[in-house]
Amino acid sequence: MQPAAYTELRERLAEVHDLDRAGAVLTWDERTKMPPGGAAARADQLATLVRVKHYRIAADEVRRLLDELRPYEESLAPDSTEASLIRVARRDHEKARRVPPDLEADLARAAATGEHAWREAREQNDFGLLLPHLRRNVELRQRYVECFPDAEDPYDVLLDDYEPGMKTAAMERLLGELKDALLPLTAAVLERSRAVDDSFLYDSFDVARQRELVLALMQRMPIATGTWRLDDTSHPFATAFSPTDVRIATRYSEGNLSSAVFSALHEMGHGLYESGVNGDTMRTPLCRPVSLGMHESQSRTWENMVGRSRAFWRCYHGLFAGTFPDKLAGLGPEDFYRAVNKVRASLIRVEADELTYDLHVLVRFELERAMFTGGLDLADLPEAWNERVRQYLGIDVPADCVGVLQDVHWAEGGFGYFPTYSLGNIIAGQLWEAAHAAIPDLEQRIEHGQLAPLRDWLREHVHRHGRKLDSAEIVARATGRPIEIGPYVRYLRDKYGEVYELPTEDFSGAGTMRM
Amino acid sequence: MQPAAYTELRERLAEVHDLDRAGAVLTWDERTKMPPGGAAARADQLATLVRVKHYRIAADEVRRLLDELRPYEESLAPDSTEASLIRVARRDHEKARRVPPDLEADLARAAATGEHAWREAREQNDFGLLLPHLRRNVELRQRYVECFPDAEDPYDVLLDDYEPGMKTAAMERLLGELKDALLPLTAAVLERSRAVDDSFLYDSFDVARQRELVLALMQRMPIATGTWRLDDTSHPFATAFSPTDVRIATRYSEGNLSSAVFSALHEMGHGLYESGVNGDTMRTPLCRPVSLGMHESQSRTWENMVGRSRAFWRCYHGLFAGTFPDKLAGLGPEDFYRAVNKVRASLIRVEADELTYDLHVLVRFELERAMFTGGLDLADLPEAWNERVRQYLGIDVPADCVGVLQDVHWAEGGFGYFPTYSLGNIIAGQLWEAAHAAIPDLEQRIEHGQLAPLRDWLREHVHRHGRKLDSAEIVARATGRPIEIGPYVRYLRDKYGEVYELPTEDFSGAGTMRM
Repeated sequence: MQPAAYTELRERLAEVHDLDRAGAVLTWDERTKMPPGGAAARADQLATLVRVKHYRIAADEVRRLLDELRPYEESLAPDSTEASLIRVARRDHEKARRVPPDLEADLARAAATGEHAWREAREQNDFGLLLPHLRRNVELRQRYVECFPDAEDPYDVLLDDYEPGMKTAAMERLLGELKDALLPLTAAVLERSRAVDDSFLYDSFDVARQRELVLALMQRMPIATGTWRLDDTSHPFATAFSPTDVRIATRYSEGNLSSAVFSALHEMGHGLYESGVNGDTMRTPLCRPVSLGMHESQSRTWENMVGRSRAFWRCYHGLFAGTFPDKLAGLGPEDFYRAVNKVRASLIRVEADELTYDLHVLVRFELERAMFTGGLDLADLPEAWNERVRQYLGIDVPADCVGVLQDVHWAEGGFGYFPTYSLGNIIAGQLWEAAHAAIPDLEQRIEHGQLAPLRDWLREHVHRHGRKLDSAEIVARATGRPIEIGPYVRYLRDKYGEVYELPTEDFSGAGTMRM
Repeated sequence: MQPAAYTELRERLAEVHDLDRAGAVLTWDERTKMPPGGAAARADQLATLVRVKHYRIAADEVRRLLDELRPYEESLAPDSTEASLIRVARRDHEKARRVPPDLEADLARAAATGEHAWREAREQNDFGLLLPHLRRNVELRQRYVECFPDAEDPYDVLLDDYEPGMKTAAMERLLGELKDALLPLTAAVLERSRAVDDSFLYDSFDVARQRELVLALMQRMPIATGTWRLDDTSHPFATAFSPTDVRIATRYSEGNLSSAVFSALHEMGHGLYESGVNGDTMRTPLCRPVSLGMHESQSRTWENMVGRSRAFWRCYHGLFAGTFPDKLAGLGPEDFYRAVNKVRASLIRVEADELTYDLHVLVRFELERAMFTGGLDLADLPEAWNERVRQYLGIDVPADCVGVLQDVHWAEGGFGYFPTYSLGNIIAGQLWEAAHAAIPDLEQRIEHGQLAPLRDWLREHVHRHGRKLDSAEIVARATGRPIEIGPYVRYLRDKYGEVYELPTEDFSGAGTMRM
């Protein structure tokens, strides 16, 4: 029998959830449908939803209910729905109360003006236009960090907003190991980069037909009809207003067929996560994906592990060739498979291939650490950026607009976000290996267009938990191991070793990188 | 110098406004984009937004601020922004406090289940399926009426939700006079109904090309690029999230070209009203259209006075003939003008022509009066309906699904809404006459595609006021007269008298109908 306080808490939290998802609808509309004239009012509407949500989660009444429920919580199994709901609600409540409303407002304002300045700075290729906003963002984030005096490392506080429970030390170790594994592998692959031809993906592809192709592909993904839609946007994203109302949005580039296809697969991976949360926790704080890292593990699974697999192209090459017979007829699955795994040293993270992607992330993570605890003067950021890109990717950055100014995150005060991209890749590697162990014929299934077994395995081991378990616990239960780079690195070595015909002794995965 | 309490009130009300408009975004998405799987969560999200908005407008703190501001309000000119804001906020606050939250919840639930039952009843042509829900709705609305014991007539309370300040006695007088004027005019026109040929509008028109045509037409309407969009829906509507984010939605019927065109013009009329509110009152209770009647006056102005005018077809017939040359080539402006003014006695209100439309409304208004104060047993509603349709339109209702079951309003508890449709027509007639007096070459302007002068006149005399003035006051200031049927009836007599070549002595507008 649930105590009355629990029912009351749950009702209050249902409202908080609804306000949060209402904000998601407004954001979706803003990014896919809203005419430009709607921008100013939309910013007000979203700010109000955030503020009202904040009042309601931080309310004294919630504190009273949480205090009253402590004995009940302690009487329950920690991973019961009830105990988890109270635990997660308490964390949300305490986080909301720690930060003074004025600071929240300052952060929101600085994010908005920073984003605006960033557009200008990038367009004009002038880091100086962004610098004062960056200083302001870092200063405000430092004040934010001070609201959590118990944190061991200031960066822990930033990380916790995106990856609850993850510590800086653990992230640093993981990404450091990943760097050590990736640098020699990438260098070897880049030396043989010409071995792969992907020029046929960079022809001229009618956008309306691309849109049909992407829609047809999404219709083959393991998600129920009538529970999702696909739209155009300028920066691809996925969102969901409930597990049966998933929104995928992508963009199309006439001269690049793979851009829309892989971004849609990526976003559908996010969408499948959203669609798989346990229905019993609807309208509670538990019914959302647990972290950005876990979210990214799902998007990268469908984009890369599935979408850039040989099995996938054995299944779907005909759909592509059939949509663009004038450009793609006569190409076989192997041609596509090799082309979509072409590796190049490039400047822009969001266009990077699977193998070099994490190196882009490493640049950003290391600079964030330097900004918050390493004493890096923000004026020196462009130089520090360019130096790392040279070191990790072997290329020169010709201009800041394709260097330090390329991403919006810092301009909006989003520090601690970047490393979750690589954490997602690492987790994806672990889950992929575990899914293979559980579904021995996984590759054949994919080759026959049967994507439900993989979805079901991910739903059972990841999606359904929502926020009940943190990402480390989900990985531990799904794979029997802590979060570790081994499986991901093995996956990369096996695939790129074969595609680029690398000498096996160098990169077979024996040695220190196996964990 | 505005007192601090005023600033505080304004800030609180800005949040209420944002919550209201956030709800409008969710409703727009629900009706235009949402996959079917989103329905259940969307209902929760919308209910939460309504509830949270209600808490915030009904809060004790708002009462305290309103009390504190009374001397300030009394020191101001009544139609100053400040005094109006306080006055309208007080009305909203008091209305919100009068109705117990439990009753609000019961009304909302009954509306939702009633809507569901109505779909079933209409589909099965079985009034009995709706009857218990109708009884429940009327009973709940009677309890709602009792929350306002000062009302002279119970129906005043219902009317006030849609047409603030309008009394039943005044509405009854206006619609009674309108009936007396319309019945003989309609009878005379229907006798000559065959004089007009509109068969060419009921050919087969490719929906994609219709969509292009409607979009091209909307682009010629006097609304700025980047401040609106047009979408598909199943029941046409317009909404706005700010004056520069207007959403129009319509539907297309392959066999009926005029359906989408006139519904889009109608909705754009609503949209132009939304777009014309004074920017100084943004995010206050003043920045919304004042009433449904006034709203409808704007939609009917653009749909009928403009869209069914000779001048309009002189300007746009080429656009139509050019889009469908295989169907419409060779037709001149006069052919279109006559066709779109074809009058027929028909069963369905939303498909009725301009002239018979108000007779459909009268049936509903008289029955609502009978339900709430005339002692009509709801079981007798179908018979009472059919009798009036026979009397006013001279046709028999073959089945309830095209009779009493055709509209959703009553099933959702929406009593008091219908008469605002005719009130809108009446006001549109008055404004149209006044606009002609102010812009002597109005017809020539329209003929040359210059629609901005009319929009500017409406903006100045109607739109910009928002909720500052009630509809009677807006009409009084714009026309120098109270709300009266004279101009509307003259407009109808002149137009239909000419199209149907009626003897002028009978319907020239002399006599009792001139007011």
